[in-house]
Amino acid sequence: MAIVLGPNQYGKAETRLVRVYRDTPRHQIRDLNVSTALRGDFEAAHTTGDQAAVLPTDSQKNTVFSLAKERGVGAIEAFGLDLARHFVAETPAVSGARVEIDEYTWDRIHGHDHSFVRRGQETRTTVVTVDKAGIWVVSGLKDLIVAKTTGSEFHGFYKDRYTTLPETTDRVLATSLIARWRYARTDVDWNNSYVGIRALLLATFSDVHSLALQHTLYAMGEIVLQKHSEVAEIRFSAPNKHHFLVDLSPFGVDNPGEVFHAADRPYGLIEATVLRDDAPNPGTAWLP
Amino acid sequence: MAIVLGPNQYGKAETRLVRVYRDTPRHQIRDLNVSTALRGDFEAAHTTGDQAAVLPTDSQKNTVFSLAKERGVGAIEAFGLDLARHFVAETPAVSGARVEIDEYTWDRIHGHDHSFVRRGQETRTTVVTVDKAGIWVVSGLKDLIVAKTTGSEFHGFYKDRYTTLPETTDRVLATSLIARWRYARTDVDWNNSYVGIRALLLATFSDVHSLALQHTLYAMGEIVLQKHSEVAEIRFSAPNKHHFLVDLSPFGVDNPGEVFHAADRPYGLIEATVLRDDAPNPGTAWLP
Amino acid sequence: MAIVLGPNQYGKAETRLVRVYRDTPRHQIRDLNVSTALRGDFEAAHTTGDQAAVLPTDSQKNTVFSLAKERGVGAIEAFGLDLARHFVAETPAVSGARVEIDEYTWDRIHGHDHSFVRRGQETRTTVVTVDKAGIWVVSGLKDLIVAKTTGSEFHGFYKDRYTTLPETTDRVLATSLIARWRYARTDVDWNNSYVGIRALLLATFSDVHSLALQHTLYAMGEIVLQKHSEVAEIRFSAPNKHHFLVDLSPFGVDNPGEVFHAADRPYGLIEATVLRDDAPNPGTAWLP
Amino acid sequence: MAIVLGPNQYGKAETRLVRVYRDTPRHQIRDLNVSTALRGDFEAAHTTGDQAAVLPTDSQKNTVFSLAKERGVGAIEAFGLDLARHFVAETPAVSGARVEIDEYTWDRIHGHDHSFVRRGQETRTTVVTVDKAGIWVVSGLKDLIVAKTTGSEFHGFYKDRYTTLPETTDRVLATSLIARWRYARTDVDWNNSYVGIRALLLATFSDVHSLALQHTLYAMGEIVLQKHSEVAEIRFSAPNKHHFLVDLSPFGVDNPGEVFHAADRPYGLIEATVLRDDAPNPGTAWLP
Repeated sequence: MAIVLGPNQYGKAETRLVRVYRDTPRHQIRDLNVSTALRGDFEAAHTTGDQAAVLPTDSQKNTVFSLAKERGVGAIEAFGLDLARHFVAETPAVSGARVEIDEYTWDRIHGHDHSFVRRGQETRTTVVTVDKAGIWVVSGLKDLIVAKTTGSEFHGFYKDRYTTLPETTDRVLATSLIARWRYARTDVDWNNSYVGIRALLLATFSDVHSLALQHTLYAMGEIVLQKHSEVAEIRFSAPNKHHFLVDLSPFGVDNPGEVFHAADRPYGLIEATVLRDDAPNPGTAWLP
Repeated sequence: MAIVLGPNQYGKAETRLVRVYRDTPRHQIRDLNVSTALRGDFEAAHTTGDQAAVLPTDSQKNTVFSLAKERGVGAIEAFGLDLARHFVAETPAVSGARVEIDEYTWDRIHGHDHSFVRRGQETRTTVVTVDKAGIWVVSGLKDLIVAKTTGSEFHGFYKDRYTTLPETTDRVLATSLIARWRYARTDVDWNNSYVGIRALLLATFSDVHSLALQHTLYAMGEIVLQKHSEVAEIRFSAPNKHHFLVDLSPFGVDNPGEVFHAADRPYGLIEATVLRDDAPNPGTAWLP
Repeated sequence: MAIVLGPNQYGKAETRLVRVYRDTPRHQIRDLNVSTALRGDFEAAHTTGDQAAVLPTDSQKNTVFSLAKERGVGAIEAFGLDLARHFVAETPAVSGARVEIDEYTWDRIHGHDHSFVRRGQETRTTVVTVDKAGIWVVSGLKDLIVAKTTGSEFHGFYKDRYTTLPETTDRVLATSLIARWRYARTDVDWNNSYVGIRALLLATFSDVHSLALQHTLYAMGEIVLQKHSEVAEIRFSAPNKHHFLVDLSPFGVDNPGEVFHAADRPYGLIEATVLRDDAPNPGTAWLP
Repeated sequence: MAIVLGPNQYGKAETRLVRVYRDTPRHQIRDLNVSTALRGDFEAAHTTGDQAAVLPTDSQKNTVFSLAKERGVGAIEAFGLDLARHFVAETPAVSGARVEIDEYTWDRIHGHDHSFVRRGQETRTTVVTVDKAGIWVVSGLKDLIVAKTTGSEFHGFYKDRYTTLPETTDRVLATSLIARWRYARTDVDWNNSYVGIRALLLATFSDVHSLALQHTLYAMGEIVLQKHSEVAEIRFSAPNKHHFLVDLSPFGVDNPGEVFHAADRPYGLIEATVLRDDAPNPGTAWLP
């Protein structure tokens, strides 16, 4: 028996890059949170402390800032690909790079040229991985908080001795959605794809008469795969943010689905994957 | 010398009330965070443990939920007044009530009847105080994140031996604004007033060529008071969210105001009040 | 009627200062979060944008770091006094300075000379204010999470039509305590005073048979004032962190005060002041 | 091509269980955050909305509370095993259960019988997975914040055109450690094992003269595996919490490693695995 180094990676997390485009009086602003991680032959750095192969995380941060100017910041997927390819191509010990980018959206204030208000709704995300075996792009969104005030049921479930939950044919359904989809290829119009998928997710959440959060998520995944051939697989993580109907009967007050207590914890947590049965191998696409 | 009880209050904080209006197929949703606090003759509760005068915080929570149905939830200022007046009128030991309400805004998904997405931009706030001396309403907003990518200078400041900051005639100005305005009266169209003030704040932030965050805040306050006679006073608390220009010259890359590092801490913090010189006495309006 | 500038202050918030003492092989570490705010004649900075009187917040940050070396970091109260006095003495337009410091405590790892683990329990706090009218020191602690599993009752309270809470003679009492005490003078052994008061707060929380959280807080304040003549006044803010007994009877399981659900929101919030009736005037000590 | 359901699980997250042992006057308190997730044949719940196989997350929560009384709460690993085995044994559609438990530690106040103060240092963690293929226990700790004020170097690293970081032979090394170790078996004295591993981690962090955070982590992993035969593998995730030496020279002040700015973001992030080369297959142990 020997003790050995297993999977490892290192990088600079949460570099907060703001890129302003000011070539014309009408500025544009891009607001990103970039995390880079490198994989490769870094055994000596761990076992003997020899750092000869290690590109400092400080240099990775510098690279993020400098490439933002040298290459520009297009869609976060494109910028992530630029960064990941750079690290793999330019750093001898690096065999794989993972670049994770969150983007915060800003809206123009009243059409003003250089004033913006942060939209604050969901965050657009991507994880780009480049290694010897291939290139993977997993894009998505998080913190998209949605709710339905009717059109949601939950009944006919399995009951054991610990089951006290009443069945319901009308409840509030609310979640803070995390969706992440793996692209089957990289020649994608990233922004169009994002906008289209986001719209499908919202519309399907709204339109499906829900028999469970699982049911809604699957429908959302199915339509995305049907309409977006560039997507191989989509994964959801969705807290069931419980809204409890408040019992007002002690006060002689009726409450026909109108007054709710929005609870913090615990919450249901539903995780599901929808994919094509012929989806290409994910490789390291989903590695955290 | 004696040891005595000083100012005190108690209540239920952060009751998360969601109110659905479903009288027609086109639902409406209101999403509030309500905190109530009662003041009055509660000395025995502290000194001897006698709770005879104390309305439990649990009852206050029940009241929030029940009045949401009994009276309905109009503007948060109106609902806060309903609650505060109720506690003062109905609870013998209570001489004053403070009701603080945050409201989270939801947008309809594609005009759908009962599906919503949380807007997630700023939070609308109010603090209503009712006591023997009067009634005060302090409304506002928080977490309104705004930025200007030009039109902001900072120079001509006082320099001491610890001053190393270079002067600048062009910087990024960004803040997460908290604004709170005290109403001079209570016969106000609350929603119209809020919408109008919010629009003025955004427009003024955009339009003023800023010589300092203080300068911008004062201009924002001045215009609100000029245009809204119902407002007696407005207070701002604004972190100066620093965006540092990244030095790319070591890499032979020019950076003419395009690539910034958005820093977390420390941050400047600017607090300022703008008011009418004949504003009515604030009484307990600003008591936390 | 005219529109005028009201109360205002500005400064640098949350400068994260770590000071290492390494004069001997046995190092010491001090870990502070320092916020400075200046008050004075800054009207022009707001109304016309003229910054001639304004010491940049960047300079304030530099001062925090440099004085940490020039004067050293003693008790946070002493360091706060050094900073506040410096700003008032050296900056022409400044008539008052407020310095707020949080201190995080680190323990030595196994008596090791230069390795530390952050204790992570409560945070020690101080707010020092120096202005024309005097000098005030308000020290305290926050995030001290304490609980009693018995010895706590709540009954005999006022009941209205919204009261459903059952009375209890045995409940879990838990809070995340914020205590802040105002010193009557500044020639105090700050560290000894802090250690003594903290011990009294813990012992009294434990020893008092509680009839309400208010009852416990008052007893804590009373003993601090009895034993610490240097303290003029003490203020508490204490969330009542509810622990709800879980009803296990549907499963045929008894639950005599053993299994609880620790709820997040809402929570009770109890705020109380205990002071000497001859306490000196607080002046600006409590200004936020 | 068909669209199919991929990996999925559902459960109740963050049930906040507090268990009091009060059989003698000297109470004990256990404070847990429990998340359960079930895997199995839940395809119909997703594709057609048929919930016949689904045990509600509400029932899972009830089970957590009830088993806390029925079986008692021993080491979190033992309680996790009780829960996971229960779900797999008792729920027809369930083929695998994952139970994640965080434990917060409370200290007795001055030896008092029923008063406690939350320690607030690191959180003890476990993830127990029971499925058809086996049983896995991955225990650990998180939020253990440690620092060394000397005995840490970083030099000899790879330099590219974006490298500006100076080499150093003396720096502050600080991290908020997450360590998770996979047990090779389940007949373990969980508490003893935890205490022993935690002590080794702290001692090794202190004693190793660090040439990089990777170097320190590997040494920590190596000694744990050497001394604890019950552990098959250990994984670390460690942010390099940068402490930047402040340049005081503009003020004519020397700063020989004494005054630091503790930065928030970005931070280095080092992730490494140390394992036995004959470690048993991890199966689903590390599935999130």
